[in-house]
Amino acid sequence: MNDIPSYSLKQLAEQFSLEWRGDPEVQLSGIAPIEKAEAHHISFLENSRYQKYLSETRAGVVVLPRVLAEECRTNCLITDTPYLTYAKIAGLFLSRDLPSVGIHPTAIVDPSAHISSSVALGPYVVIGPNVHLDDHVIIGAGSYIGAGTHIAEKTCLWPHVSVYHDTEIGCSCEIKSGAVLGGDGFGFAPTPSGWHKIPQLGRVIIGDRVSIGANTTIDRGSTQDTVIATGVIIDNQVQIAHNVSIGENTAIAGCVGIAGSTHIGKNCQIGGGAGIGGHLVITDNVAIAAMSGITKSIREPGQYIGRGGMGVDTLKTWLKLAAKLRGIDKILARIKKLEE
Amino acid sequence: MNDIPSYSLKQLAEQFSLEWRGDPEVQLSGIAPIEKAEAHHISFLENSRYQKYLSETRAGVVVLPRVLAEECRTNCLITDTPYLTYAKIAGLFLSRDLPSVGIHPTAIVDPSAHISSSVALGPYVVIGPNVHLDDHVIIGAGSYIGAGTHIAEKTCLWPHVSVYHDTEIGCSCEIKSGAVLGGDGFGFAPTPSGWHKIPQLGRVIIGDRVSIGANTTIDRGSTQDTVIATGVIIDNQVQIAHNVSIGENTAIAGCVGIAGSTHIGKNCQIGGGAGIGGHLVITDNVAIAAMSGITKSIREPGQYIGRGGMGVDTLKTWLKLAAKLRGIDKILARIKKLEE
Amino acid sequence: MNDIPSYSLKQLAEQFSLEWRGDPEVQLSGIAPIEKAEAHHISFLENSRYQKYLSETRAGVVVLPRVLAEECRTNCLITDTPYLTYAKIAGLFLSRDLPSVGIHPTAIVDPSAHISSSVALGPYVVIGPNVHLDDHVIIGAGSYIGAGTHIAEKTCLWPHVSVYHDTEIGCSCEIKSGAVLGGDGFGFAPTPSGWHKIPQLGRVIIGDRVSIGANTTIDRGSTQDTVIATGVIIDNQVQIAHNVSIGENTAIAGCVGIAGSTHIGKNCQIGGGAGIGGHLVITDNVAIAAMSGITKSIREPGQYIGRGGMGVDTLKTWLKLAAKLRGIDKILARIKKLEE
Repeated sequence: MNDIPSYSLKQLAEQFSLEWRGDPEVQLSGIAPIEKAEAHHISFLENSRYQKYLSETRAGVVVLPRVLAEECRTNCLITDTPYLTYAKIAGLFLSRDLPSVGIHPTAIVDPSAHISSSVALGPYVVIGPNVHLDDHVIIGAGSYIGAGTHIAEKTCLWPHVSVYHDTEIGCSCEIKSGAVLGGDGFGFAPTPSGWHKIPQLGRVIIGDRVSIGANTTIDRGSTQDTVIATGVIIDNQVQIAHNVSIGENTAIAGCVGIAGSTHIGKNCQIGGGAGIGGHLVITDNVAIAAMSGITKSIREPGQYIGRGGMGVDTLKTWLKLAAKLRGIDKILARIKKLEE
Repeated sequence: MNDIPSYSLKQLAEQFSLEWRGDPEVQLSGIAPIEKAEAHHISFLENSRYQKYLSETRAGVVVLPRVLAEECRTNCLITDTPYLTYAKIAGLFLSRDLPSVGIHPTAIVDPSAHISSSVALGPYVVIGPNVHLDDHVIIGAGSYIGAGTHIAEKTCLWPHVSVYHDTEIGCSCEIKSGAVLGGDGFGFAPTPSGWHKIPQLGRVIIGDRVSIGANTTIDRGSTQDTVIATGVIIDNQVQIAHNVSIGENTAIAGCVGIAGSTHIGKNCQIGGGAGIGGHLVITDNVAIAAMSGITKSIREPGQYIGRGGMGVDTLKTWLKLAAKLRGIDKILARIKKLEE
Repeated sequence: MNDIPSYSLKQLAEQFSLEWRGDPEVQLSGIAPIEKAEAHHISFLENSRYQKYLSETRAGVVVLPRVLAEECRTNCLITDTPYLTYAKIAGLFLSRDLPSVGIHPTAIVDPSAHISSSVALGPYVVIGPNVHLDDHVIIGAGSYIGAGTHIAEKTCLWPHVSVYHDTEIGCSCEIKSGAVLGGDGFGFAPTPSGWHKIPQLGRVIIGDRVSIGANTTIDRGSTQDTVIATGVIIDNQVQIAHNVSIGENTAIAGCVGIAGSTHIGKNCQIGGGAGIGGHLVITDNVAIAAMSGITKSIREPGQYIGRGGMGVDTLKTWLKLAAKLRGIDKILARIKKLEE
């Protein structure tokens, strides 16, 4: 939606301190996958699945590891970390469609709120009493920030985010549209006349550099807080129940549900669609397969899969078991032979 | 976000008609879990998993059953229903961040709407033609109420709720942010030129004291109505398709999906992430395990699990079957021995 | 919410060019299921499950195939496609609660946007720079359209939809509340100091006559675009990750998740709650069972089921395998007998 910038190979090599081969003056004005790139595109190669395209790509430049530089038929930038380097270069071509510094005249800010002068508030934003918004916070159109919430510097909310009262959000976080943070947890006591709601007195606490996906929901704690540590990344449509804690740099893919009072460690990776039961402890460095149903705590790092009513296993154990189960025809044949 | 109230043990005992032991003048100003509580905190003990903390808690007061009063090293309040009593006491410390009575100047109310004078409408609320809002209804910022919808007394909508036209919502309900009620059901007829949309002529009817979670969706019926009975509690990110009915006091955990025209009875409990197929009947008092895929009707009360392509079983039957399947190594060993 | 229209059997027969039997003057003013219909209702019969009601229905008219006309005890309309004909007739009774042509005074439209004079914008709509809205586009209350987005004629967005920048939406689409289109894909590179976000430079491209459900999320591509082809229908709470493509007329039921860079063909049907892994190819005319976990590409049309760690099978293969696994008691009995 803006004029597209253009850079020479030499400019990119200097800006990112990279070794290069080829024509230093080739002009690059965009990014494309290696198999689809044209002469003005930058591509990268890290996944060996795509190595076959290296000899035939029409890309203007490929970002790749030294070991592949010889095979490259076009210009290249050499790095030990092609994907990360690509990410940094791609940032040159990114335009973000967020409000500029200043308060849109239709934003409603409670007089008791503390708003840095470098904050950007879009149209129809609502900021409650005693909210603190630090430097360079950006709040997209129509988002709602409840009373007493604090958002630290450089955090960005896209349009239509709902943040309930007394939530703490760290710096440099990004929260996508439709996310709901701090709603009451799902706590009810049974009584003879029906369910009696338990007051949810805890908060939601979000660390720094946390990414929260679209339509993801994170409930406030009942007595304790729900805590998402620094560096956690959460995809779209994830549900995190009350009193849950998630350790640093854990990654949670789309459509995951985590039930109440479960504690997940650092550097975990939870596959898409997985469900994790309540009151469990998952230690650090655990990877959980997509669509898993995890019904018990995991105390040792490793790769796990949960098949709901079939139990929770390491991936290795499960794959052996599944292969034997799939071989039931052979079992039946052997029994038949014995019977004969 | 407000001044924190404080109560003496004696005040609490009197207000809730409870027997007490210890220092009647001890001051309590908050709630905490028994293992983390300090001297000014009220805790409760109902789950035997936490009983070990009773001899060492630093809580100012513990709410507990009579049988545990002797073991309690601190002051206590005695009740047959500790969790429920705790819930009532915790309500003293709850502050809700919702709009006060009155219509915010930015709320848009169609002239044909009937709005009780005790209603509270937040900023940027939109109320359509012929809407009826009864006494003490609260509508949070940015919520939308379509034409002809009726919301009964004391029901509260948090910010950013979407309620489509002609929806009926009972009294004392609570609906969290991002919920969408009354959108068209997913009905399409195949034709040689693609899908033809079926008009969705039914409504959504919600009983009294229903709780609806954040980003939960409930579609309007096609010819019949979609009906959620009184006392039903629904967690976040639940999807309820057109023509579904849910019986009284049924509880539905997060991320559940219920396909079209299925009828669920009273007092059921649906575990998180479960999926229930279309055109089924689930009788009263059925508990369904988390992550279940239910593909057939359930006619008898009890605990069930559905493993999608492996069928639907009572939990007891499935656990026996799963144990045998997991024992396939023993089967293979026995066959090998026979073969030798 | 409006006066209910009324039609005679003869009027309906003429308007839709249908053969009829019975009283041409019977007045019809609504739609109902065959087992619940009254004398003023139109019903239809296509699913043989409901045929038993034909001899006892109180419906004023039943829309049915010729072969059933003899059995019908009331008036009828005869057609080869009862469900589709019913859908067209039902449209007569539909009232849509959407804004009328014109721009609500509270809608904020960037001066650089191109808005057809036949567009309808509801209250508190926000339209960004360089947006193009073609003829008869309808945008419901509070929806947000990011910079550079183009929406073609007759497309309708219900309230509270978020469309990010540079999105392309075809004509005659319908998008329900809470849907989020064009948010950044979930792309992060691992670094020693945590996750580094990959700029998401692609767009979301939506064809014509696409239906998108409430709270469904479709992420923008990383380098390529995310593409939803013409005629696709998507239910509520579906998550479609970056770089995914969905072929024409494919139907996706509620709560499905599709991971990044997966390509799904034309005329597929994805059952509710299914999860489809990343970087896969699903060919045309594939039906995937509800709650499936699909972990590998599918190259041949047919019906499939994925049991996560148990692999992906045709439905037929799986049902045979599952039956043998469920028969493990018989296997154990046969081994026991051999051992004796």
